[in-house]
Amino acid sequence: MKIDDAIQIVKPHLTEKRFDHTLRVKDTAVRLAEMYDESKHKAELAAVFHDYCKYRPLEEMERLIKMSSLPKDLLKYHHELWHGPVASILVENEYGISDRDIRQAIYYHTTGRANMSKLEMIVFLADYIEPGRDFPGLDEVREMAKKDLLLACWMTSKNTISYLMKKNATIYPDTFYAYNDLTIRINGGNKINGN
Amino acid sequence: MKIDDAIQIVKPHLTEKRFDHTLRVKDTAVRLAEMYDESKHKAELAAVFHDYCKYRPLEEMERLIKMSSLPKDLLKYHHELWHGPVASILVENEYGISDRDIRQAIYYHTTGRANMSKLEMIVFLADYIEPGRDFPGLDEVREMAKKDLLLACWMTSKNTISYLMKKNATIYPDTFYAYNDLTIRINGGNKINGN
Repeated sequence: MKIDDAIQIVKPHLTEKRFDHTLRVKDTAVRLAEMYDESKHKAELAAVFHDYCKYRPLEEMERLIKMSSLPKDLLKYHHELWHGPVASILVENEYGISDRDIRQAIYYHTTGRANMSKLEMIVFLADYIEPGRDFPGLDEVREMAKKDLLLACWMTSKNTISYLMKKNATIYPDTFYAYNDLTIRINGGNKINGN
Repeated sequence: MKIDDAIQIVKPHLTEKRFDHTLRVKDTAVRLAEMYDESKHKAELAAVFHDYCKYRPLEEMERLIKMSSLPKDLLKYHHELWHGPVASILVENEYGISDRDIRQAIYYHTTGRANMSKLEMIVFLADYIEPGRDFPGLDEVREMAKKDLLLACWMTSKNTISYLMKKNATIYPDTFYAYNDLTIRINGGNKINGN
């Protein structure tokens, strides 16, 4: 799919603000793909579609989660977590995007997970650091994103967990599986710091 | 088992410092049991044995984890997590302590877990707030322990996750499950704050 076609597909599904965010995530993802030797087109396409289902009616997403192979425990967590997994199904059903890596990058962009691929990390990170974002600790992550993809994703998952705990929110298991997995990958698998 | 017998059993297995800690956990657990209408004897016994295996040789604990029904993923995490589960087995094998609630309180005293019983919460919390402990945020938890067991345990699990992330340590899943479960129990199961 041509990227301009993808943009035209996604646009009517988003608010103006969210559409602008999507374009910034796209540009950030392309930059990261160049930097870390990943397919620019895949990064671009995954980024354009990452929030495709952000404003779907909750009932529609709920129905799709129940009817598909998506994990049912999603329904026990905040619906903010549903749009990534749901989009990963709909981009295939509606537009024939069957590339597994692109679909996983869309699926896990909110939570991350254990064993993220490079493309998944790029979209996960781009969504967090795109230039429109502004929250404490972000500049350190942006700096790290220029040097080390793994470490920047690890900082992102750490910040996300802290943020959710500050809000007294529950944390979807994939979010902390991502943190644990990145911690082990960074420490080279040693357990010295582990608990 | 009489509590004095339990103390005599445990003493030679601990350093002097750890033995003193154990006695303070016992006193704290008894106080919490009185406050929250739990069996004082169960709380006392679980507290006395909670660190029974703290100084077992790692090889012995590793063998027992492999041979027993304990979850094998423990071996992928720091050995600090092994002594609770291992003790929950050995107190039954060696001293016939078969009470399920006591054994679970020993098992989960380090991590907590989802669906903790009152006794489990009491030992988990007593281990954290006993008067010999001193770290940032502890006074708030001590104050809360006088008012609300659930909230005090929730603060404990939150502090534990923050502490481990600060150390760049991996986090055993039960630690997170405890946090999520307590968050839901406190919010009355609503998902408003959830992610």
